[in-house]
Amino acid sequence: MEHSFFVWVDLLGTFAFAVSGALAAEQKRLDLFGVFAISYMTACGGGIIRDLCLGSFPPVGISDWRYLAVSVVVSALAIWARPIIDRIEHPVVFFDALGLSFFTVFGAHKALLLTHNIEAAIILGMVTAVGGGALRDIALNRVPIIMRKEIYALAALIGAAVQVLGQSMEWRIAATPWLAVSICLVIRLLALRYSWSLPVIRRRRA
Amino acid sequence: MEHSFFVWVDLLGTFAFAVSGALAAEQKRLDLFGVFAISYMTACGGGIIRDLCLGSFPPVGISDWRYLAVSVVVSALAIWARPIIDRIEHPVVFFDALGLSFFTVFGAHKALLLTHNIEAAIILGMVTAVGGGALRDIALNRVPIIMRKEIYALAALIGAAVQVLGQSMEWRIAATPWLAVSICLVIRLLALRYSWSLPVIRRRRA
Amino acid sequence: MEHSFFVWVDLLGTFAFAVSGALAAEQKRLDLFGVFAISYMTACGGGIIRDLCLGSFPPVGISDWRYLAVSVVVSALAIWARPIIDRIEHPVVFFDALGLSFFTVFGAHKALLLTHNIEAAIILGMVTAVGGGALRDIALNRVPIIMRKEIYALAALIGAAVQVLGQSMEWRIAATPWLAVSICLVIRLLALRYSWSLPVIRRRRA
Repeated sequence: MEHSFFVWVDLLGTFAFAVSGALAAEQKRLDLFGVFAISYMTACGGGIIRDLCLGSFPPVGISDWRYLAVSVVVSALAIWARPIIDRIEHPVVFFDALGLSFFTVFGAHKALLLTHNIEAAIILGMVTAVGGGALRDIALNRVPIIMRKEIYALAALIGAAVQVLGQSMEWRIAATPWLAVSICLVIRLLALRYSWSLPVIRRRRA
Repeated sequence: MEHSFFVWVDLLGTFAFAVSGALAAEQKRLDLFGVFAISYMTACGGGIIRDLCLGSFPPVGISDWRYLAVSVVVSALAIWARPIIDRIEHPVVFFDALGLSFFTVFGAHKALLLTHNIEAAIILGMVTAVGGGALRDIALNRVPIIMRKEIYALAALIGAAVQVLGQSMEWRIAATPWLAVSICLVIRLLALRYSWSLPVIRRRRA
Repeated sequence: MEHSFFVWVDLLGTFAFAVSGALAAEQKRLDLFGVFAISYMTACGGGIIRDLCLGSFPPVGISDWRYLAVSVVVSALAIWARPIIDRIEHPVVFFDALGLSFFTVFGAHKALLLTHNIEAAIILGMVTAVGGGALRDIALNRVPIIMRKEIYALAALIGAAVQVLGQSMEWRIAATPWLAVSICLVIRLLALRYSWSLPVIRRRRA
């Protein structure tokens, strides 16, 4: 992919994740530092978990100033310019789906390069994309939403699988990530549009 | 120990941990992905934390397909064949004690080989066995049950200590793991049978 | 700094963190093992997260017997000699501020040496000091208090920044850590004295 284009998409995804963290922090009445911490954790937590599992030190979420800067800006907006955050709440759902797709594919790509293990690469691709949201919910004392609602992690899992299979079978290299991103994005958007959900465990007979 | 025998015991332990995760996920009405995520986290979380602390990448829970396969099967059963899970709920308590004992001893063994540090090996042996259950409870928004009920982590701690001391003093190598497994298993089963508990902190004078 | 003096201060900080863990565990009616686990996690959790992010294995919290010993003693006191813990509750707030300052500065120092990355060193300095408390609250099923009350993490962040800037600009080496510790300690004590808080996110218009 063109590098500068990717940087923009990655920043949009980071931004969307940071906003979702800040919005969630509001419900718990956190202070400025809390909003920043949750926002940052949501935006970079998935990549940090992936890098810890890959033995890639220090994790990019900690050493790359962009994640930090985006979280600082979003937290400041959430505290002092709340109407701006409210106005972008709707587009944020779209950026979030975009972030989900790109984080998944780049996470899977990096994990396959470093481990040469297909299973690890698929799992870590998904973790890159959903880990931040899971940390956010755990820190906010909620059961992670990815385990309860709509098809979200599953879209990432499928996107990661497409990327890893394509990459290890050497499908036309340039096309593979775009294919994987598109599949993940389409599944996620369809799930949002039609409220697709996964089956829930059957109740024990009373 | 004979290798193929161990593989079976390890799988039984993994299976028991995966079932306990799926049963816990039910109470929170998680969807199929949530049940799978909790089940997998319970079965492999302890080993992943151990490997992260040992610098052993990627963690076996992520790169070994068995953990993943067991969790997938258990989740599918929990969602679509709940009566089967109900029927095995009782034996699962026994497999769980077996899993606790084997996870502890192999975790301590691996940690001592890699760190040559007795304290780290004992702690990481215990963490291998109880870490998955703690992650499960934290993700499900509960105080980890190992900190509240019965003698569970303590059995693992003692089993790990026996293994590490035996291994570092070179007791007859073949016998050490069996001794450690037996001690851990017996303590856990006796604690279950007689509802042994640890003392609770004294209330502050009202 | 003089080595033996530091060891004492570090132990006092560890002790204060261990006590805060044990006191928090009481509210959830944890058993002896639970009190020990929370106490140990509070005292050494921040350093463990830092070392995992630095690729420094095994983490000192696991391989250094002092953290473990302090937690064991504090847990035993909390269970069997509760009046002693009650009597030291007030000085503990001061030790805690001292521990915050020293953990921050030594964490930042270690992280800068190992990563040569200013951003990572500042973040990991703060994480060293506040990570244990955050783990304690997450395990006890509460929203981390550092995100809700008073100026705590911010004092660590500023202390870490002073240390990292001083260290990378080679201010008079001997003076830098003392300056950083003092600034962090003074901010924290003033925040306690005058109940300084950070702004909270503005409510959405009903």
